[in-house]
This record gives sequence, C-alpha cells and structure tokens, in this order.
Amino acid sequence: MSASDAIVHVPLGERAYDIRIGHGLIERAGELIGAATPGAACAIVTDENLARTHLPALERSLEAAGIRHAQVVCPPGEATKCYRWFETVCDAIIGARMERGDVVVALGGGVIGDLAGFAAAVVRRGMRFVQIPTSLLAQVDSSVGGKTGINSPHGKNLVGAFHQPSLVLADVGVLDTLPEREFRAGYAEVAKYGLIDDPAFFAWLEENHRGVFAGGPERAHAIQTSCAAKAAVVVRDETEQGDRALLNLGHTFAHAFERLTHYDGARLVHGEAVAIGLVCAFRFSAALGLCSGQDAGRVEGHLRTVGLPTRIRGIPGWDGDAAAILDAMFQDKKVKRGALTFILARGIGQSFISRGVEPSSVREFLDAELARA
Amino acid sequence: MSASDAIVHVPLGERAYDIRIGHGLIERAGELIGAATPGAACAIVTDENLARTHLPALERSLEAAGIRHAQVVCPPGEATKCYRWFETVCDAIIGARMERGDVVVALGGGVIGDLAGFAAAVVRRGMRFVQIPTSLLAQVDSSVGGKTGINSPHGKNLVGAFHQPSLVLADVGVLDTLPEREFRAGYAEVAKYGLIDDPAFFAWLEENHRGVFAGGPERAHAIQTSCAAKAAVVVRDETEQGDRALLNLGHTFAHAFERLTHYDGARLVHGEAVAIGLVCAFRFSAALGLCSGQDAGRVEGHLRTVGLPTRIRGIPGWDGDAAAILDAMFQDKKVKRGALTFILARGIGQSFISRGVEPSSVREFLDAELARA
Repeated sequence: MSASDAIVHVPLGERAYDIRIGHGLIERAGELIGAATPGAACAIVTDENLARTHLPALERSLEAAGIRHAQVVCPPGEATKCYRWFETVCDAIIGARMERGDVVVALGGGVIGDLAGFAAAVVRRGMRFVQIPTSLLAQVDSSVGGKTGINSPHGKNLVGAFHQPSLVLADVGVLDTLPEREFRAGYAEVAKYGLIDDPAFFAWLEENHRGVFAGGPERAHAIQTSCAAKAAVVVRDETEQGDRALLNLGHTFAHAFERLTHYDGARLVHGEAVAIGLVCAFRFSAALGLCSGQDAGRVEGHLRTVGLPTRIRGIPGWDGDAAAILDAMFQDKKVKRGALTFILARGIGQSFISRGVEPSSVREFLDAELARA
Repeated sequence: MSASDAIVHVPLGERAYDIRIGHGLIERAGELIGAATPGAACAIVTDENLARTHLPALERSLEAAGIRHAQVVCPPGEATKCYRWFETVCDAIIGARMERGDVVVALGGGVIGDLAGFAAAVVRRGMRFVQIPTSLLAQVDSSVGGKTGINSPHGKNLVGAFHQPSLVLADVGVLDTLPEREFRAGYAEVAKYGLIDDPAFFAWLEENHRGVFAGGPERAHAIQTSCAAKAAVVVRDETEQGDRALLNLGHTFAHAFERLTHYDGARLVHGEAVAIGLVCAFRFSAALGLCSGQDAGRVEGHLRTVGLPTRIRGIPGWDGDAAAILDAMFQDKKVKRGALTFILARGIGQSFISRGVEPSSVREFLDAELARA
C-alpha cells in the first residue's frame, strides 16, 4: 500500500467505507480488496473497452492475491443501463456461484458502476460491492454515495437502490488514457462541489484548472476534495430525504437536456449537460434576484474557459422550446407531488434547496434563455 | 376500524409497521391505507384471478377514500416472478406517475407480494408498500418480514431486496374462497412456527386444526400467532445474518424438492414441499441422535392428519436420488462458502441453526429416506 495514496473515509456507521485515491491502484487491487473483504470471491463487471485495457491487470492482481474471480463484459454506453443487461449481469454473477458474502467489482465508468451496483444490491438480496471507477465523473460523483440503478423507457435511473460499496479504488493514472471530452465532462461535477458550498475550492479551480487537466498533483487534490465534499453530504442524508438534494445543483436542467437529446452521447454527454445546467441554475437564481449577475457570469466564464458548453442553444441539433424542457422536468424523479424542486444559489458556494418553484417562472426564464444570442 | 381486528406490531424502528388481521379489511382498505400513508396515491399490483374477485372492492374502497389509484394485472402463478414481469410492473408504476412517497399495493398471494414488493423497493430507489395477502401462506409468511424478489433461471428468489411494508392487511374472510389444497399448503407454515420455538402452539394446533380449517375464531388466532412469531424473529434479525435462518426450518429440503419438480405446482406447491421438508428436518435430527424418534413421529403424524404430504417418494412423478437432492441444495442461496446450513431440532419447539453439516451425512439420510417404504 503506497504512502502517497489519499483516503477519504465515509463514516456511514456499519456501512462505512474508504475511498482510496492514488496511482497504480488497479495493480494493487487484489491485496486491497482482499484486506477489505477477506476470503471473498469477486465477480468483475466491466465493458468491452476496459476488458481490453485495464481488466488484464485487475485479473493478474486478483490472481496474485489468490482471489477467485469471474467476469461479465457489457457493451460500453448508456444503453447498457437497461433491464436486459441487468438480467444478464445478475444471472452471470449467480451462475459464477457467487454467494452473499462475495463481492461484485465494478471496473468502469458511471454506467458500469450504476449497473453493477444495482446487481450487487439485489443478487441474493445484497452482495458486497467494490468500485474501481475509471472516468473522472465516476471517481468524483457516481462512485460515492451508494446510488445505483438502471434506466426505464420513462427516464434515467428510475429503477435502482441505495447500496454502499465496501471500498472504492480511484486510480488517477487511469484517467491519463481518457478521451479529453470525457475528462472535461467529468470536470463539470468537480466544479459543482465548489459551487454548492465551497467558494474557496471554486476559486482554487479557477487558478489551477490547467494542472487538473494536465494530470499533476492538482488532479489528485481536486478528486480528493470532490469525494470528500460528496461524502460529507451523503453522510448527512444517505437516502436523499433532504440535504443530499444539493448534489443535484444543475441536474434538474441537465436531465431535461439529456432526455430531449435522447441520451445521445454524440450530441451531449452527462457532464456537458451538467455544465449547461449549472449555468442555468445560477442564471435562473440571478433572474429571480437571489444571486448577483457577476456570480452567474463567473460560473459561465470558468466553465467556458475549460471548454465546456454553457448554452442550451449550443447543444448540437437543439430544437426544444421551453414547454418541452418543462415537460421533461416533470417526468424527472425528483418531482415531489407535482411541485418542482430546484437547487438555487445566493452566490458561489451558497446553494440551497427551493421546493415548490412555480413552473411559470421556470418557463419565463427558459424562454429568455433560449432567446439569448 | 373494527374493534375485533387483531393487530401485530412489528417494531423495526423507523421501519415499524402494523399487521392488521380481521374480516372485511379489503372493504376498509381505503381508510386504513389513507391513515397509514396520508396523501399518497396507490399502484395496485394483482393477478388475473384477483382482478375478477377482490380488486373491484379494493378500488371502490380507495375511491371512497379519495385516493388516486392505478393497477397492473399479472398472470397468476410462480412463472410471473421473473425479470420480464418485474420490468412490466416497474414501468407500469412509473408510467402511472407514481412518486417516491406513493404506495405500491400488493393484492394477491406470495407471488404478487414478492414481485410487487421488489418493484416497490427499487422504483425511484424505494416507494412505500402495502400488502393485502390473499392466501394463508402469504398472510402468515411472505407478507411478514420484508423479503421481496423474483426468480432467476438459476433458482428461486435469487434476485430481490429487503423492503418492509408500511402496512399489512390480512383479511381472513378472503381465505374462505381459497381452494382447499392451497389453504392446506399454507398450513404447513403455520405448523412450522410451533415447531421452531413454540411447542404449546404446536400442541394447540394438534387439538384445534379442525377449527383452523373450518374458518372459526381458531383461524384468526392461528394467523395472529404465526405473524407474531415471524415478526419476533424478523425484529431480532432483519436481514438474515443469524437467527432469522430459523424460519428456514424444513426449507433447505423443500427448495430442493421444488427445484427438482421444476416448480410445477400441479405436482408440488411450496407449502407441500415445506411439509415434507419439516418431516425431513425432524427425521434427519432424529437420525443424528439430536431429537427423539417420537417427536419426529408427532410432526409427521400431525401433518399427515391435516392431509399434507410427508414423504419424498409421495411427490407425483418423483424420480430424483439423494445425489440430485444434494446438488439442488448446493445451488440454494442459503449455502455459505460451500458448507451446508440446516435448521435442526432437539425436539418440537427446539430448533437451532447448524452450520457446516457434512454433505455425506445428508446423503446417507436421504438414501435411507428414499428407501423407506
């Protein structure tokens, strides 16, 4: 175990676990998983891309540690988060004779993590779960907090479970091989943590984003800060009854954009939708007189600087109007008894939950936003 | 609310709930559900048989209470506990615009309860859940304790969740319309509670079984005693880490018999398999010198008296040998790291968990049992 790893502890009582952040963690996964779950076998869930790149190293590491393992390889992409692959993954885990105390290991990005985590939550009514997130988005967001699930034809993540991992291994070296667009999309979630309640972190990002993108020590620092920020919220509100909703800053907008572009990653990936959603959340807050126009401008400016999209009209092939966006929001699972819940802000790092936002004021804002040059 | 209803409270902290046992509860479901989950809409999951018999009364009752409701009707039978119907039920609930605080109502036997409960556990990562069990088996067993799930091609109940209901309405009048074979099968689980740890209840059943079958006050008493017994075990061990395994008395055998008869209800229904399994558990205990042959004989005698099957060779079309039964047991989800766990007994009402039972001794017992005239 390397002394240079950073560890974020998530103190959830008997479901407490560690997020380990460092280099070469996949090569050390066997000993680390063996220490966290002694005697357990591993069912690895991964996708075709990772099966070629990082799966062999993970398998070698498990073999060296004497851990029995099996794997199921899924197609890459959001379409894999469906009932059919849920069934295939569950049956593959069962077919490999994995028992309740054994471990499902997710090697992949958010899609694999969500799908494998849901399978771990329900196979034999709950197996152990280890995440090895291989995208920036998965390392700072989807691998922390225990949300798992698949998509329904009615919308994203509508079927799933809260299931905490036993261990998360965030191997920052893996990110060097990511396509730049995917890394950049994940950066939107990193910036989000500053915008929620940590203005100093946002200011640090404004100064240090080049290092984060270049892969220096700034990258590990940004990942550690993000994981710690998310973990702190999750500990306060594990099953999203209250405060956890803050993590949805920008997401009510983002989910609507994703739905209206039919989850077509060629046009818009999740992190890009979040970037536009963050800008919308701040501009909407400014339009409501809650936050200064300067702060909204700073948010948009920084995201544009790192190359993220910030305007609805900038989405390739966009043709939705305000009514379509509003309709997509109403189908979102965060809708509570017909009223719309938004995360709004009084400034950078000063977000809050606003329940019962009037659909008419959202519509007015969207009309203006879509008319913006 | 009728003064004559019996209530078994299940004190699971913030997941505490009541099991109400009485007559005419379906007609009063609207007010009872409305009181337990104010303001919530209801998605009823039921089967084609109940859609004809009791669904109209339930709908009238919800309408009278001003509760918005929708329904999804499944085919009757064990085959419905599959991935395909899980998907259909989840999407129907979501399509009816049910939100997190709304309620999934299971109107049916164990199949509907397990399927609907699993959907309730995972739609929007957890909705509320009300059970209206319509078979004796469901009233005394599957509706108490929060186990939900579906079958995999690899075995029964291998995919599911622990999800406690908000309320259980056990309408004993509904049982009057059950086929006698189905009622009798449920009785095996009633007898099981006496055999686990309540010898006085088993003796009471030996005296009063005619009243239980005839539908007198003895029936409600037997249901209440059974629910209270199961609830007490569940409270001690909600997620089956230890004591809850006692509820599997007879079930390691029973599941193997069901698997080897391909879950063909025409040959063997679950309760019948449990009856044979209970006899096996006591005869195996006697063969190991743990319990007296007299006690094993009393178990077999009472179950035969009420018309339940007690011998493996009595299963229609039975052709399995000891090796096949053992192999089926090893695929059971209660298998722990290769060792077999059995619930054995030192006498009636003196059951205990025995881990690491030698497969060779099980095989020897089964060989002798199958050779029995």
